[in-house]
Amino acid sequence: MVTLAGGVDERLARQIGFLVEIDKLKNVERMSVISDASRRENTAEHSWHLAMCALVLADRAGPEVDIGRAILMCLVHDIVEVDAGDTYIYAPDRSHKADAEAAAADRLFGLLPDELGAELRSLWEEYESHETPTGAFAYSIDRLQPMLLNAVTGGRTWTENGIRQSQVREKNQPIEAGSSDLWMLASGIIDTAVDEGVLAPD
Amino acid sequence: MVTLAGGVDERLARQIGFLVEIDKLKNVERMSVISDASRRENTAEHSWHLAMCALVLADRAGPEVDIGRAILMCLVHDIVEVDAGDTYIYAPDRSHKADAEAAAADRLFGLLPDELGAELRSLWEEYESHETPTGAFAYSIDRLQPMLLNAVTGGRTWTENGIRQSQVREKNQPIEAGSSDLWMLASGIIDTAVDEGVLAPD
Repeated sequence: MVTLAGGVDERLARQIGFLVEIDKLKNVERMSVISDASRRENTAEHSWHLAMCALVLADRAGPEVDIGRAILMCLVHDIVEVDAGDTYIYAPDRSHKADAEAAAADRLFGLLPDELGAELRSLWEEYESHETPTGAFAYSIDRLQPMLLNAVTGGRTWTENGIRQSQVREKNQPIEAGSSDLWMLASGIIDTAVDEGVLAPD
Repeated sequence: MVTLAGGVDERLARQIGFLVEIDKLKNVERMSVISDASRRENTAEHSWHLAMCALVLADRAGPEVDIGRAILMCLVHDIVEVDAGDTYIYAPDRSHKADAEAAAADRLFGLLPDELGAELRSLWEEYESHETPTGAFAYSIDRLQPMLLNAVTGGRTWTENGIRQSQVREKNQPIEAGSSDLWMLASGIIDTAVDEGVLAPD
């Protein structure tokens, strides 16, 4: 707990309480390894990397995408993992993920002043449903970034989990709805990985 | 290196090259420890935390602050540390920091297509000079966040480095220019730390 001195209003105390709570995302381990393959990535640094991808690849989004909002989605999209943890995209059973994340969203966004919690929750929900152009772009970035880390680490998480080409194509197909350029890039990464024997060709 | 398949344009190759290069920020260690004091923070996750602070504390900025731009500054403000590393705010000799970071900015932002590199560099420079209201707010967030981590870890980095109250007041005074509310919060954290014997009272 932060010991807040007198004079700090109740609203600010809630804002700071939330910001301290989400620091825990720095200890949530993902399957991806970082680019030098020295260790697994955590969700906090992953979220930063996604936001940077959205900023740098903004020209690959359609004109109807609000890049500023897509960046905010990248920042908040995995906050629910403070409680729910990360679920590997190719895990056989992902059935509990949605319920666990919804409960986490209730608790975590509920730490904030009401309208601010609602604002952050709406960003998370738009990312999760990825039905709007902006949500679809943020979602495509979240699919692409682990592929980039696989591309520079010899497909580390693909080989250690025995992932096959068809799985990667199926799970990453949503990239196409977010950006045709990024889907072409992703497809090229998959093709190269198959050529190099990193991904099993099915 | 990412092996990029045919069909990927030269511009996209430069964008991806930059995004892979800045992944190295996940291995740049800062003095701060994360909130459970289990390890030091790295610059990538620190940058995410700052961006979240700017988003959540937006109502503490003046009306002339562009919060979206402040968030972008938080994302890019330490990219130069890929080459220059982190320099502790209370380090006795910080004289080489500016030159090392300028050279790093030349190399790193130079990896990008020209106009995109210039855009990111302008964000970094506005943060560094912190002369605009938006730059001052982003700068204040970068000062505040390590104080929050000290507040929840019993002043870990203050006690291990023998930091005194006057040093903390002097180095964090720029918070006031960014947000009077956040300066009141920071002052309260300092007062509490002195009361608790965590910061030497000079």
